[in-house]
Amino acid sequence: SPFLNSVVAEGCTDASVYNRMILPASFGNKNKEYWDLLNGVVMWDVGAERQVQLEGPDAGKLAQILSPRDLSKCKIGQGKYVPLCNHDGILINDPILLKLREDLFWFSIADSDIWFWARAIAAERGLDVKISEPDVSPLAVQGPKAGAVVSSIFGDWVHDLKYFWFAESEINGIPVAVQRSGWSKQGGFEIYLRDGTQGTRLWTIFKEAGRAYDIGPGGPNWCERVESGLVSYGGDTDTTTNPFEVRMGKYVNLDVPDDTIGIAALRRIAAEGPRRHTLGIVLDAGDPVRPGFLWNPLYRDGRKVGDLTNCIFSYRLHKNIGFALVARECKVGDRLEARIG
Amino acid sequence: SPFLNSVVAEGCTDASVYNRMILPASFGNKNKEYWDLLNGVVMWDVGAERQVQLEGPDAGKLAQILSPRDLSKCKIGQGKYVPLCNHDGILINDPILLKLREDLFWFSIADSDIWFWARAIAAERGLDVKISEPDVSPLAVQGPKAGAVVSSIFGDWVHDLKYFWFAESEINGIPVAVQRSGWSKQGGFEIYLRDGTQGTRLWTIFKEAGRAYDIGPGGPNWCERVESGLVSYGGDTDTTTNPFEVRMGKYVNLDVPDDTIGIAALRRIAAEGPRRHTLGIVLDAGDPVRPGFLWNPLYRDGRKVGDLTNCIFSYRLHKNIGFALVARECKVGDRLEARIG
Repeated sequence: SPFLNSVVAEGCTDASVYNRMILPASFGNKNKEYWDLLNGVVMWDVGAERQVQLEGPDAGKLAQILSPRDLSKCKIGQGKYVPLCNHDGILINDPILLKLREDLFWFSIADSDIWFWARAIAAERGLDVKISEPDVSPLAVQGPKAGAVVSSIFGDWVHDLKYFWFAESEINGIPVAVQRSGWSKQGGFEIYLRDGTQGTRLWTIFKEAGRAYDIGPGGPNWCERVESGLVSYGGDTDTTTNPFEVRMGKYVNLDVPDDTIGIAALRRIAAEGPRRHTLGIVLDAGDPVRPGFLWNPLYRDGRKVGDLTNCIFSYRLHKNIGFALVARECKVGDRLEARIG
Repeated sequence: SPFLNSVVAEGCTDASVYNRMILPASFGNKNKEYWDLLNGVVMWDVGAERQVQLEGPDAGKLAQILSPRDLSKCKIGQGKYVPLCNHDGILINDPILLKLREDLFWFSIADSDIWFWARAIAAERGLDVKISEPDVSPLAVQGPKAGAVVSSIFGDWVHDLKYFWFAESEINGIPVAVQRSGWSKQGGFEIYLRDGTQGTRLWTIFKEAGRAYDIGPGGPNWCERVESGLVSYGGDTDTTTNPFEVRMGKYVNLDVPDDTIGIAALRRIAAEGPRRHTLGIVLDAGDPVRPGFLWNPLYRDGRKVGDLTNCIFSYRLHKNIGFALVARECKVGDRLEARIG
């Protein structure tokens, strides 16, 4: 990531690998990183959220072929959260789609390889579109004070951005796109750096503008995102998960064109009803668990009914919470058994 | 990897990320790891070499569609090194293909996502084939004494395996495939573990059988592979590299069926002649360089003619050596300029 030098200088202590890049997770004070996200403002190097760029006369057509969400009304400057599925209706990514021009789109992707996927589909269907990974690396600014920091840099117009909408801009000659977005429910922006040589400069601009708001570094926050019900593709999903099973059904439009990948399977699944669904779960165990993607089996009356996909000790609830991907006969209020640790 | 616990217990000091997994590189004594590979025997956790499994009536057809190497004479039990290309003839992986049955193949892949690629092609062409990532994790045993170790475990029949051929077998109930293979030119085998719960047991079997030969842990050896001229996909190739540019032309058969992906482009490139080729390079600089994928520009008479894709200090030559991906007018014996460090 172009922000790597800054992240190392800030004292990054935890990271994961995401899209074959380093995704910083923590800087040693998880308690502060959590509460700053809830009450203040944090900045995250999310350069590992790579862009799959579609450019050319058939870019819009390909975007729709890849996405079972209706994009026909998507406007330039608008972003949309879209599930991507394979031909069997299985989720293979859940990017934000950004429409930059009628013939230029970015999928800002989660952790799976969509370049090869998009290239295979485009070539097999003979579409006139170039697929590439542009020099674009997002920096997330999240929390209730994010707007104050971002507007102090770019101007008050950023307050007028609707959710997932974006505008191309620049700061001190550094080209960026500013989007109201981010992988938390605390509000904020993602700043898409469009010149990888300027990462340290952009990081410093935000650090200095944020000083008055006590901005600190962090990373996508596991506790907050579980509390907020945000699903992580590849973590809370497996190789058989469809969008309806992980609360993404509202982002599937069954009336998209028939050549949309997976739509026939999704129509069938929607008609039959998905076999699993995702519920929040609270554990009896009082001691904080080590957070992680667990996929521990969940039992009801001795019978396996699904999996505990993740778990973490909630700062706000003072309980261990997580997501359960379980058979649809399991309901809110059911009591399930799991073995942790 | 199923061998992770063993690798940690052995004191792994260096690793990289490969196919989203940890690929151990060194255990702290690179000098010994190198000379053991040349004169003795080493064992490497190469579980990150994942398998893309094609299974079903159209598995063989899909394998050929994906590979511009003629597979029509490939026999059950045979492996073949195959470049995989996209529709533009650009290299996207260079796996070993293993034919297990007429309707069952593995691509043992380098570091890029071929599952999505293969699934997209199979689905778009309406092929009857299931593509999956099976529970298979290779362990490499390399060096001139590898045959002695492997035959002491499995029997003398392993000596009769031809290069890249393999046989399904088992040891103490652990299912494996034994292949004459490995990412070095020192000879040896890869043992494909087919039960991920048995990694520690299999590691221990090789460690104990190898004790008489002073077997030690290591990882794919950068110095040896550069000395031996082995190209690393994704390291010595970029997003515009075709097989002819990296000495893989002999693995491309221009008379494969017309529906083979990339073959039209490869025929055109072959007719025109590739614009670049790969040469070995010896640096004047005497101090050992830090090994890495450099992509430092190379100049001749002040004009950029290509890139130094990698470089390392050779134990045998006592010089810094590397690969140059350069314009085809550059010849063996040319003097180029590079700036390192």
